[in-house]
Amino acid sequence: MPEAVYSPGKTPSHVRDIVIELIERGVAPVIATRCDDEHLAALEDVPEAHVLGRTSVWNPLESTGRRAGVVTAGTADHVVADEAAITLDALGHEVNRIDDVGVAGVHRLLDRAADLAALDVLIVVAGMEGALPTAVAGLVDTPLVAVPTSTGYGSSFEGMTALAAMTASCAPGVSVVGIDNGFGAACVVARWMRTRHAGS
Amino acid sequence: MPEAVYSPGKTPSHVRDIVIELIERGVAPVIATRCDDEHLAALEDVPEAHVLGRTSVWNPLESTGRRAGVVTAGTADHVVADEAAITLDALGHEVNRIDDVGVAGVHRLLDRAADLAALDVLIVVAGMEGALPTAVAGLVDTPLVAVPTSTGYGSSFEGMTALAAMTASCAPGVSVVGIDNGFGAACVVARWMRTRHAGS
Amino acid sequence: MPEAVYSPGKTPSHVRDIVIELIERGVAPVIATRCDDEHLAALEDVPEAHVLGRTSVWNPLESTGRRAGVVTAGTADHVVADEAAITLDALGHEVNRIDDVGVAGVHRLLDRAADLAALDVLIVVAGMEGALPTAVAGLVDTPLVAVPTSTGYGSSFEGMTALAAMTASCAPGVSVVGIDNGFGAACVVARWMRTRHAGS
Amino acid sequence: MPEAVYSPGKTPSHVRDIVIELIERGVAPVIATRCDDEHLAALEDVPEAHVLGRTSVWNPLESTGRRAGVVTAGTADHVVADEAAITLDALGHEVNRIDDVGVAGVHRLLDRAADLAALDVLIVVAGMEGALPTAVAGLVDTPLVAVPTSTGYGSSFEGMTALAAMTASCAPGVSVVGIDNGFGAACVVARWMRTRHAGS
Amino acid sequence: MPEAVYSPGKTPSHVRDIVIELIERGVAPVIATRCDDEHLAALEDVPEAHVLGRTSVWNPLESTGRRAGVVTAGTADHVVADEAAITLDALGHEVNRIDDVGVAGVHRLLDRAADLAALDVLIVVAGMEGALPTAVAGLVDTPLVAVPTSTGYGSSFEGMTALAAMTASCAPGVSVVGIDNGFGAACVVARWMRTRHAGS
Amino acid sequence: MPEAVYSPGKTPSHVRDIVIELIERGVAPVIATRCDDEHLAALEDVPEAHVLGRTSVWNPLESTGRRAGVVTAGTADHVVADEAAITLDALGHEVNRIDDVGVAGVHRLLDRAADLAALDVLIVVAGMEGALPTAVAGLVDTPLVAVPTSTGYGSSFEGMTALAAMTASCAPGVSVVGIDNGFGAACVVARWMRTRHAGS
Amino acid sequence: MPEAVYSPGKTPSHVRDIVIELIERGVAPVIATRCDDEHLAALEDVPEAHVLGRTSVWNPLESTGRRAGVVTAGTADHVVADEAAITLDALGHEVNRIDDVGVAGVHRLLDRAADLAALDVLIVVAGMEGALPTAVAGLVDTPLVAVPTSTGYGSSFEGMTALAAMTASCAPGVSVVGIDNGFGAACVVARWMRTRHAGS
Amino acid sequence: MPEAVYSPGKTPSHVRDIVIELIERGVAPVIATRCDDEHLAALEDVPEAHVLGRTSVWNPLESTGRRAGVVTAGTADHVVADEAAITLDALGHEVNRIDDVGVAGVHRLLDRAADLAALDVLIVVAGMEGALPTAVAGLVDTPLVAVPTSTGYGSSFEGMTALAAMTASCAPGVSVVGIDNGFGAACVVARWMRTRHAGS
Repeated sequence: MPEAVYSPGKTPSHVRDIVIELIERGVAPVIATRCDDEHLAALEDVPEAHVLGRTSVWNPLESTGRRAGVVTAGTADHVVADEAAITLDALGHEVNRIDDVGVAGVHRLLDRAADLAALDVLIVVAGMEGALPTAVAGLVDTPLVAVPTSTGYGSSFEGMTALAAMTASCAPGVSVVGIDNGFGAACVVARWMRTRHAGS
Repeated sequence: MPEAVYSPGKTPSHVRDIVIELIERGVAPVIATRCDDEHLAALEDVPEAHVLGRTSVWNPLESTGRRAGVVTAGTADHVVADEAAITLDALGHEVNRIDDVGVAGVHRLLDRAADLAALDVLIVVAGMEGALPTAVAGLVDTPLVAVPTSTGYGSSFEGMTALAAMTASCAPGVSVVGIDNGFGAACVVARWMRTRHAGS
Repeated sequence: MPEAVYSPGKTPSHVRDIVIELIERGVAPVIATRCDDEHLAALEDVPEAHVLGRTSVWNPLESTGRRAGVVTAGTADHVVADEAAITLDALGHEVNRIDDVGVAGVHRLLDRAADLAALDVLIVVAGMEGALPTAVAGLVDTPLVAVPTSTGYGSSFEGMTALAAMTASCAPGVSVVGIDNGFGAACVVARWMRTRHAGS
Repeated sequence: MPEAVYSPGKTPSHVRDIVIELIERGVAPVIATRCDDEHLAALEDVPEAHVLGRTSVWNPLESTGRRAGVVTAGTADHVVADEAAITLDALGHEVNRIDDVGVAGVHRLLDRAADLAALDVLIVVAGMEGALPTAVAGLVDTPLVAVPTSTGYGSSFEGMTALAAMTASCAPGVSVVGIDNGFGAACVVARWMRTRHAGS
Repeated sequence: MPEAVYSPGKTPSHVRDIVIELIERGVAPVIATRCDDEHLAALEDVPEAHVLGRTSVWNPLESTGRRAGVVTAGTADHVVADEAAITLDALGHEVNRIDDVGVAGVHRLLDRAADLAALDVLIVVAGMEGALPTAVAGLVDTPLVAVPTSTGYGSSFEGMTALAAMTASCAPGVSVVGIDNGFGAACVVARWMRTRHAGS
Repeated sequence: MPEAVYSPGKTPSHVRDIVIELIERGVAPVIATRCDDEHLAALEDVPEAHVLGRTSVWNPLESTGRRAGVVTAGTADHVVADEAAITLDALGHEVNRIDDVGVAGVHRLLDRAADLAALDVLIVVAGMEGALPTAVAGLVDTPLVAVPTSTGYGSSFEGMTALAAMTASCAPGVSVVGIDNGFGAACVVARWMRTRHAGS
Repeated sequence: MPEAVYSPGKTPSHVRDIVIELIERGVAPVIATRCDDEHLAALEDVPEAHVLGRTSVWNPLESTGRRAGVVTAGTADHVVADEAAITLDALGHEVNRIDDVGVAGVHRLLDRAADLAALDVLIVVAGMEGALPTAVAGLVDTPLVAVPTSTGYGSSFEGMTALAAMTASCAPGVSVVGIDNGFGAACVVARWMRTRHAGS
Repeated sequence: MPEAVYSPGKTPSHVRDIVIELIERGVAPVIATRCDDEHLAALEDVPEAHVLGRTSVWNPLESTGRRAGVVTAGTADHVVADEAAITLDALGHEVNRIDDVGVAGVHRLLDRAADLAALDVLIVVAGMEGALPTAVAGLVDTPLVAVPTSTGYGSSFEGMTALAAMTASCAPGVSVVGIDNGFGAACVVARWMRTRHAGS
């Protein structure tokens, strides 16, 4: 399992020191999550970083040949999806983004059904009413993990609505990680896929 | 607005007396909701009842010519859907049932898209994760009202999950009534459609 | 259904670009919601904007002749009411404001009963204990949609109290959208009224 | 302050023994609340009982000359209202019932405005959305205490909706007791009115 | 009932304009609540203001001769207690402060028992576990209204714990207003005491 | 730590078999908790049982000489207090009951202050608003553990109010176990007191 | 994905009819879940049933050669574990039970570490504080899915505590299904493992 | 029991004045908690301060010879652990830190089992799923008090998840203080240990 440096509550130089130490010890991959602008600035000159949104990665694993999809309901889910995507990439997966296919426009989702079915695994990210993983799981048999986000306002109740909806999903085979936990979703993929390697 | 006799907490003979009094006063329609077996037995010999599930109706309004759909996600939603359907019928609507089209089997829902689009108004009933109204609203422009049900167990939280999800829906134009309130949903239709009559 | 540009989380120039592209594509209406001061500044020179509060509109639909009311309980509900009002206007409705008729001063509400009854449709906006839609629905038969707001403090629980109260309303025919979702309420009107056009 | 024998969890003979002991000690009033049928049967031959619903009283106080109103939104609130009413009676108040004036039929409430204004104090009992105390407080200046009830189903959340709504009331001077606590509401009246005696 | 100008969400000059208009119309008392520093600055030159904490008053009522107590559990409750106290003062009550007698130091509370008993009415303000009104009501028969505050952190859940505890109080005759609603508590006193005047 | 046989969900003969096996293995003490009438009947002929309420004990430890108090707010807390008391007894503590000293009658609590101070440890059991542990902790320095109970109705929210209140207690040194967990409270005492033995 | 017949709310003969029809159509596997005693009796003479607890299966898939573990924290979790186990079996997995290794006895869990590591996939079932999946995930790299159960009383809040704890798990790679959803957990395994077959 | 100066909501000079007055009165220990940078600056020149994180201490008690452990799950729990540690130190305990032994890495915890067993008392601090106190209590018999923290995001629900999990712990003898209440946990130790002194 990858072990990430969770940046909130740590000073930029503290995060930087940990990252450098991990790189020197040969840890792979090294991942710093939830970096704010100051964390990112402090990490800027640590060489060979891959940065996406608020996550930085060093020493990515070599390609596993697996093709993973990161699917989002809307723009506001991109931050969490980015965290999942770069972690998947660091773990050696080829990442395919399928963005903005929320259930409110069912046809856009249907148009991507073949793409969804062609991938090895899906991370499905949605906030508000959190219906997307249910619809995706009703559409394709691909293994998937659902990520509720704190997207939205009011009745979204900071992700609680989506979390409850996803765990109550009427579609079989949906499992769920914590609110906004894109990194955790990628770890779920890693856990299932690693065994798979061993087994192949 | 129809005024229903809400049976729980009333004795069978009390419900029967109120119903008879309303019929004698010429009220139309007369509706008794949430009758248990004993209420239904006591109402059995009040002539000209229409009964569906736990609801009894007398003096239905004459046909408005409107065609309403009552849409359910699964079997467990039928009790609430029945309450909505017989109330719509009592209010003079032609009722069309579109059952068991939950989002977990998106294709069954898609197969009914033309049927949904052809109706004048929809009541969409769902429990668990409550995704169906969002998907229906993303599929057709028909006016609709969503009813969360207390269907399911565990993470359904007795309808709270579906209620939150429906009010947080990412699809435009979804409005929601209380948990298990099939009668209320039919009243929403009555309120919007009555004006419409006046205006036509 | 109108599709709005939801501004939070997007940069001012990103919002501006989307708006211009939609206008160029001839979309009508184009609506940008929840703009902060910087979003509004960036949109200022896009010609022919209608602005009310935090919402901007281009290409409004032509008049439908429908007369809609936007009713508020108190001053703190005006932000949400404004979002509903300008969206209704963009959709071709004549908007009538009936402000500050909260149930705490029942007589002010009663004084407006005739005005409420004369309108084709009502959006009723209230926070705190959320009693206003229940009282309005008890007073007139006009179709209405209720909007809970996050107005107030403490026991208002950021709109949850009003949301629960409105969905538990003892008045028949009240349906509800999400907390603070003025745009959504106008979409409910659009959905019901559009069909109505078709039907007239 | 009256001290009641709370019957649930006590055997019928235990309740009977406590009641007899209190009567023999000359306590006034003696009140047994929430009696089930077996409690009531066991208390039947304790002489000079006043019984209303699930409450029994002995040794009522002599009349204070105060005129109290017990106001309900609907039939389902009567059980709680009965508990309040017989306790007020035991404390020497003349009790006036104003039943079934829920906000869904505002005109029925308005018809009773003069009656409400003529009373010395009001206990206002309501479940579901709990709007009645707010409307009553907006209508008259009479002192009042609000009682939320667990009436209703679904979105009533066993009284939580009404409790939250009443404590968030936009009407000034509304205070609230616990869900279904009719006895407690009468004690609030006793506390305020006793001092008043002393002060008169 | 006094009608307050609730300042949050209004510009300083708007609050100032409303206050001046109310004074000119002879309203008594005029109360502006929850003023921030800028509201207070804008109100500074409106003559004859009484200011306490975040509340400003003009045209106080003349003395009723009633002696009210405002009781707090701890320092963090003073802001809410101040709002209650100056409102009581504006309504013509003599205000007595009994501060920092939280149940954690029961002896400090007991030392003030005679003071509490000597007053005509009490407003009891507490956050955290909200035990103080229960203890006060167990100690004296004085009429009282309880105010939960959002004092504290963690398990205080922003006043929800205190609100629930106060409405579940095992002490008879405790009624409760909304979280942090010092103004509302004073209105409860006004409502009960005004009638009392009329009755004396 | 004692290990209890938790009876719910087990058949009477299954509970009996486990108990006999533990006795034969020389376990001390053997404790069966939450027995219903059928569990108790099945255990009746297992010799040398100590039974209190719904708990049965065999092989109690010999006396530690420690004097423990079990303190309750009201009658409805006795079931939970009994579970704590017999477990303490099984662990070799002398148990002193101090019953029905809820905060609503502060003087009854004060009358027992010397008794409370004389004991080595206290388990304080209360439902509803859960104020008793706070008051006891404000009165004496004795170590104590608080047990919230699901006593009461409505605003007690099945023990959640008391649980929140006890963990938010303003009195220093209060710690809390789960709702209705009398056995768990006795285990807390065992854990702290066992070490004490070792250390003495 | 297997489609189960969810029995609650269906009559025994209705369940029986659906099962027979599915068998006749050659569906494999056919699974009836949450059968009560009457459902089981009605299904008794449908030949070749595999029954475990409240679940019946016909037409199991042939062995995949995969070895799955079903891990429980305590006895009360067995009902949910049984539902998962027989579904896994119906899907062609060899099922290994590792029971009663709750975190309260960490050593019992550690003693099974090698067993856990040797399996291809784990379903980890726990109620109360729900710590077991976190500990298992911290111990082995095996893919796992967590199932919160409504085991326990009081602070377990009918599974909500375990659900929240599992989705907040500090261990990487834990994903979660709904409360008590043993069938759903087996479907998660099916979804991930099916693809795996395809890929092998 | 130590009485702390709780700094939030007090001006720096107010905190400083109280501290100096307490020192002059000879109070021991004097503790100021939750100081922000300005509070700490104002307290800087009050001589002989011990400062750790956000807590300052004067007049610590002399050594009791007791050895206390402060155990944390992760870095984000250190702020709360620091508050507990310096308070324990002020009360005369030798403090041993055992940091970052969260259940996700069970082996790190096991490596410290002997250290945990050797201490007289443990304060166990954890956020997120709050599993650590359960695991520690399953590993050693040392008396312990659990502190849930508001660490984490999303499904941690600001400490509510950890609070619920800890009070629902399946391990015997775990008791819990409020969210983030490190000071309170040290007071629990003081309460149990003080009696112990008296008793030794």
